[in-house]
Amino acid sequence: MTAPTLDVVAVGSAIVDVIAAAAEADLDELGLVKGTMALIDAARADELYAGMGPAIEASGGSAANTVAGVASFGGSAAFIGRVRDDQLGQVFAHDIRAVGVAYETAPATTGPATARCLVFVTPDAQRTMTTYLGAATGLEPADIDTDVIGAARFTYLEGYLWDPPEAIAALRRAIAAAHDAGRLVAFTLSDPFCVDRHRKDFVQLIDEDVDVLFANEAEIMSLFEVSSLTDAVEAVRGRGRARTVVVTMGALGSLVVTADATIECPAAAVERVVDTTGAGDLYAAGFLYGLSTGHELDGCARLASLAAAEVISHVGARPLVPLSGLVGPAGG
Amino acid sequence: MTAPTLDVVAVGSAIVDVIAAAAEADLDELGLVKGTMALIDAARADELYAGMGPAIEASGGSAANTVAGVASFGGSAAFIGRVRDDQLGQVFAHDIRAVGVAYETAPATTGPATARCLVFVTPDAQRTMTTYLGAATGLEPADIDTDVIGAARFTYLEGYLWDPPEAIAALRRAIAAAHDAGRLVAFTLSDPFCVDRHRKDFVQLIDEDVDVLFANEAEIMSLFEVSSLTDAVEAVRGRGRARTVVVTMGALGSLVVTADATIECPAAAVERVVDTTGAGDLYAAGFLYGLSTGHELDGCARLASLAAAEVISHVGARPLVPLSGLVGPAGG
Repeated sequence: MTAPTLDVVAVGSAIVDVIAAAAEADLDELGLVKGTMALIDAARADELYAGMGPAIEASGGSAANTVAGVASFGGSAAFIGRVRDDQLGQVFAHDIRAVGVAYETAPATTGPATARCLVFVTPDAQRTMTTYLGAATGLEPADIDTDVIGAARFTYLEGYLWDPPEAIAALRRAIAAAHDAGRLVAFTLSDPFCVDRHRKDFVQLIDEDVDVLFANEAEIMSLFEVSSLTDAVEAVRGRGRARTVVVTMGALGSLVVTADATIECPAAAVERVVDTTGAGDLYAAGFLYGLSTGHELDGCARLASLAAAEVISHVGARPLVPLSGLVGPAGG
Repeated sequence: MTAPTLDVVAVGSAIVDVIAAAAEADLDELGLVKGTMALIDAARADELYAGMGPAIEASGGSAANTVAGVASFGGSAAFIGRVRDDQLGQVFAHDIRAVGVAYETAPATTGPATARCLVFVTPDAQRTMTTYLGAATGLEPADIDTDVIGAARFTYLEGYLWDPPEAIAALRRAIAAAHDAGRLVAFTLSDPFCVDRHRKDFVQLIDEDVDVLFANEAEIMSLFEVSSLTDAVEAVRGRGRARTVVVTMGALGSLVVTADATIECPAAAVERVVDTTGAGDLYAAGFLYGLSTGHELDGCARLASLAAAEVISHVGARPLVPLSGLVGPAGG
């Protein structure tokens, strides 16, 4: 086995976020469940957009945000995901390449438009998301560049994309290629509704395929259908392949769960939380960058928390400053 | 003459801003003159975009920002300007309507794409802009809805658009319609390079057509080819129709120059200047809203300064909070 030449390759949805401020009452009126992500069709996207305030557009996509974060730390990263050859597709491709991520997936030349996520940010800085997946669902097994997967220390997959059959097949191909090359697979449960739709698949992934698992409290409790975080932690501890399980808990910090220990990690201080979009994505970025650069688990969690703190201090789900600047002379 | 039913209608370029952080050295490398706006063609736009860092997209356009500001204060406003029927055109139309501005100009169905302005924001919060006008140059006299112009207290025109012959004809038609209806015309010089290209026309506009003129120091000095602000102020004072001339001076505040007085107005306090894009546009918004609601000139300048202060405290050229919230119980 040769040494990896990439730190992280991610496979996920290529999405442009459309971000607007919203009142709590707007969420009710639009039929949205606060704090969650709902998949919507084109007609519902148009309807919600019409009801949305003035917005800004910024590249997003959960796993794409994570590799953008890895690159911002100075790590080497690649992304696999589909856009359409339209203006928002150009925006997505520009932004991920501009931060140094290799991105070679061919844009679709027909079919639905580039994916959009309408992000409603309430005054408490919480984000409620509705995603029109559009061209992102067109990812298929042939798009998985097994050379890139084989070159990367970590292949990072998002649960969000586990929906269209061809995309699931693409994710399975990426997992197989990573295993074949003796590399590690990392996975995020993404969202409680997402877990609810695919619980059996996700448990099987943890048992058989995933080396590093990322989840928040709601997701990990939903996965094992338990009502306490303690029960969820014990259900996942040392289970199957997943030797490292990270549970994020917002302002309460995070837990790193291994077969024989639970490490409690504080959240990094934030002067003012503006928009929590991307918090989990950037946490994963810092953690994977930490693992790639040989940090202990508590050091990985510290880098993860710093990256998450940066991204929630402003609007948008990608870092506004190079995350490498957050790493101290001792390497964080 | 019936009472106006609109406060301000603006005619200008319909533009989406593409905003990224840049180092001073990047400007040199890309051949850009700091603090100015340069018009570029599609090929140069692609070249500059390729050299730009990760960006966010936000609706812009100088006069469009101004009417968005008027609406944000609670004023009634309309906008006339051309987009293409593409994704960025949809973004522009959505954002200006979402803030309450009436916008009915038909999008172009063929020809160049919606205008983009690449905005490079340096660490000192200064913005350097390059604009690909695309579909915005397709505005023509037939797009000027003379009923809307006739209904508005102020018709506000941007110097930026004074370039393609058809657009100039459209602006002239708007001026004629405003005069015919007994309404007032406001004009911004927009940019020193812009003034340099059209000095003779702009002086003639001031002499014959414009009631309220907006300029910054560099623009007004360029207009009269003088090297001191005092000389420029004396050159414009009481000249032609322009009974009210407003000169903005950044952190030094602004001057309101009338035939017999010069009112000095301080800038409003800003905790941290993040991005000066839109400062002049929002100053004009506050001033015109003040005039529309019967404020004295110093009160207009105060509203103007508050609006400018809001927009320079964050990335992007449109208000992030309702400007009506800045107006005190005594009406500002």
